[in-house]
Parts: sequence; C-alpha cells; structure tokens
Amino acid sequence: MQRIEHRASFGGWQDVYRHSSQVLACEMTFAVYLPPQAATRRLPVLYWLSGLTCTEQNFITKAGAQRYAAEHGLILVAPDTSPRGAQVADAEGHDLGQGAGFYLNATQPPWAAHYRMYDYVLDELPALIEASFPATDARGLSGHSMGGHGALVIALRNPGRYRSVSAFSPIVAPTQVPWGQKAFAAYLGQDRAAWTAWDATELVKTATPSLPLLIDQGDGDEFLHSQLRPQLFEAAAAQAGYPIRLRMQPGYDHSYYFIASFIGEHLAHHARALNG
Amino acid sequence: MQRIEHRASFGGWQDVYRHSSQVLACEMTFAVYLPPQAATRRLPVLYWLSGLTCTEQNFITKAGAQRYAAEHGLILVAPDTSPRGAQVADAEGHDLGQGAGFYLNATQPPWAAHYRMYDYVLDELPALIEASFPATDARGLSGHSMGGHGALVIALRNPGRYRSVSAFSPIVAPTQVPWGQKAFAAYLGQDRAAWTAWDATELVKTATPSLPLLIDQGDGDEFLHSQLRPQLFEAAAAQAGYPIRLRMQPGYDHSYYFIASFIGEHLAHHARALNG
Repeated sequence: MQRIEHRASFGGWQDVYRHSSQVLACEMTFAVYLPPQAATRRLPVLYWLSGLTCTEQNFITKAGAQRYAAEHGLILVAPDTSPRGAQVADAEGHDLGQGAGFYLNATQPPWAAHYRMYDYVLDELPALIEASFPATDARGLSGHSMGGHGALVIALRNPGRYRSVSAFSPIVAPTQVPWGQKAFAAYLGQDRAAWTAWDATELVKTATPSLPLLIDQGDGDEFLHSQLRPQLFEAAAAQAGYPIRLRMQPGYDHSYYFIASFIGEHLAHHARALNG
Repeated sequence: MQRIEHRASFGGWQDVYRHSSQVLACEMTFAVYLPPQAATRRLPVLYWLSGLTCTEQNFITKAGAQRYAAEHGLILVAPDTSPRGAQVADAEGHDLGQGAGFYLNATQPPWAAHYRMYDYVLDELPALIEASFPATDARGLSGHSMGGHGALVIALRNPGRYRSVSAFSPIVAPTQVPWGQKAFAAYLGQDRAAWTAWDATELVKTATPSLPLLIDQGDGDEFLHSQLRPQLFEAAAAQAGYPIRLRMQPGYDHSYYFIASFIGEHLAHHARALNG
C-alpha cells in the first residue's frame, strides 16, 4: 500500500493510497480522510461510494465533507468506482465497464474476472482500513447515484454490518430503469432472477429494519424520473414496514452542489449512529 | 449576458454567466453565487480572484464557500483569470498568457490588446454585477496565489473601493520572484520602474491603512520560499505601519484543500466589514 497524496485539510489529512486488490485483481486507489481526532484514538469509518464516471477524487475535492468529519470525529473512506487498468474489461459509454462497477459481483464474461466491487467494498477494503488506520469496526455507508444504489444494496444485504446508511439521488430500482438494466444484463446475464439480489427496492421487501436510513433527492434532478424513481423504494419500504427518511429537496440537481449542500446533515445522521 | 449554469446550492443558486467584455475585447465567463437572502434584498459582494491555470470553476466547485456565503448573506463573484479565445495572445506554459492574466493592464505587444484584467476586475465587472444582480456597492476582495496578488494590489491601489481584503498564499512581491518577473517582463516590459505599481510589497510602503487585511499561508506550501515569500510583505507593512494579519498555517499546502479549510474564516472576516 502506497500513499500517493497527503494534504492537510481541516486540521486532519486527506490522503490517497494505491494498493493491489486481491479481490479485483488489479491496482486500486482509495481516499482516506483522517480527522484531527485520529491522531490520538480509534474512530468510526464512513464509507462513501461514488457515482458513474467518478474516481476517488470527486468526493474528496467537491463534497466538502472533511469539515463535518473533523467536527464529528469520523474517518472518511472513498474507493474508486470499478476495477481499473489495461487488463480490465471496459466498454464504450459512461454507464458500463471502468467507472461503472455498480458495486456488484459480475458473473458473466468478460466482466467476472475483475468486477467484484461488492466483495471489495464489503470485505477487502474495510479489512485493509481497519488494519492500517486508527479505525474501529463501527461502519457507516453512503453514496451518490450508482453509489447510492451500492450503499443501499450492501447495507440491506448485510444486517449488522453497518450502523447507518444514507444516499444522495440513489438508483433505487436498477432492475426497472435503463442504467441498471444495461449494467445488470452485462454483468449478471439475461436471467432476471439473478438481478433481484442487487436491487434495493426488491431487497427492502424482505429486510429486517435494522439501521437508520436517510435519502436525499433533488426534485430538479435531470435523472429523477428516468433513472432514479425514489418513490419505488419508498413504497416498497412502507409496505414492508421498513422506516426510511426520503427528503425531496426543491430545486436541487444531480451534481456535487447538491451533495455539498446536504453532506453535513448526512454526516450528522451517521455520527449519531456511529458515535452514539 | 447569458446564464450558462444554474444550480441550487445551500438554499441559493450557483450560476455561471457568459458576457462580452468591452475592456478585454473578448467573451468572458464569471460565476455568481446568490445566497438565499438575495431573493428578498440587496447584499454585499465578495469578489474572488483565482490563481494560475484556473477558470471560474475551481473556486465554485472546490472551495466550499457557498455554505458560509449563505450564512452571512454575501454574494460571491468569481471571474476567469485572463482574457480568453483564439484571437487572444497566449504563450506556452502555465504562468503567462491565457489563465495567467496577473490582474494588471498590459502595456506591451502582443498582450496590451486584451490583457486588462485590472480594469475588468476593478470597474467593468462590478458595474455589471451591481446593475444585474441584487448587489449593493459594498465590496470585499479575496483570492489565491496569483489571485491573492491581484486582491492585494487592487485593494491597496484603490482606497475606499473595498471594505475588506484577504488572500490565501498570495504572490506578495512579484517583482522579486520568478513568476512575477516573467509575467511583468512580458506584460509591462523590461523597465522595472513600471513594475512597482503592481507589487503589493511596494504598494503597502506608501498606502494609508484603510481596510482589514487577512492573509493565510500554509507552511507546507511547495511555492512558499520560491514564489510567495509573505515575510517580504509583512516586513514592508510593519515598517509602513499598515496593520495586517498574516497567519502561517502548519502543514497546509498550496491546494484547494487549504482554501476550503479556512474559507469560512475569510468569509467571516469579510462579513464583519461588509455587514457591519
């Protein structure tokens, strides 16, 4: 593991590391924000999953989350959004292949060899973080768009593994929208029975309510009605008796200006669960 | 004037406009953040001048200033860093030509035809802002690196025009460092007598103390000893009896991580003068 960026930020350090991932069979980068409190004690970790086309850089340069992490004493970890490299399968377009891992384990060629972001985010990365940094095993999970999908799916599939979950503008029902249908057909194959295990709206129907769940969605989001459709998740959660907070935020779009405006409230949401 | 970006941000709007600049004889873009209070009353304006290679985008995507502008009720305006376009003179490298206007009025060919960022920032842009937006004529001025140089020079040359000034990592003595010497030789010619009017350390020697002046400088800044040298300004100001606050911030570098960490304190500094 090699540190490739190291920058003072809000009294702590915004670092970026490169390491060799066993699960993904490639070199990966991830970002770690260590707040000032990390100099003297172990802290909970909030994992952030980014959206289509992103790397670890988008969140750390644009969200402004470090201020709140320093206030609450949270470590922030932001992985890349897919396996990377010349030997890793890729596709034209922004919504499949590198930069578009969808936080699942692919079963189909040519994707299955590297595209195992679910295992990476759930197991390999936290093990590395908890062994290498002053981190406790108290974990929160959040993300944006494709990363919001990842956060909801990973948290719902693993009760007890996270203490809190949140999402901005998540793809809540990938099996019902074009982004998800394209990616799932490629990564998982044409049999739709295999898709439901990666769809938050399907998962919440049988989930045991176990963690605070906050979703923010801008009502000016250009993808709201085509790709995101949060009401599908809201309705399924209500029917299943799984309490969620879905907040429609007037005027906000799909950008990091939206994330920056509410990331403070999301970190407070996670801090209540992680520091409580 | 044409609005080309419009994004909800912290209850207000982060906009970007394109307009035809008379002074620069080219199309220019600038960013305007309108906090929520701008919907109901006129507000003071803080102008932000960016550093080498930047456009209006760097500040609005990375500094996280909108939160504090919304708290204090300040409009933020961030212009581009030079004239732009195929008809505008340019040079190889990052420190001369487009993206490197140095906030002065060039006198030498081929630069003199367009490179008049001093007049643009001092006169044309504020006139446009105050005519087009709910802005008062209470103005503050801040900037980073080359933009910190611009903020100090423009404020010191125009007593009474601004109520407050601040800078991050400014080039305080351009006539004594490589960046400034290269730019001034090109834009102003070889006669060094013409350079002193654009050097904050020279200007402060004869300035009448008239406005609150705050400088933050990271002591881990890779350009500190070669290009920035804030102690030159500090010594000249002390000798002239001009009170300044220069804060050396341990560990911080030249990046937007540094700006983001202290922009809240800079906006509070300006708000005290602008809202007082």
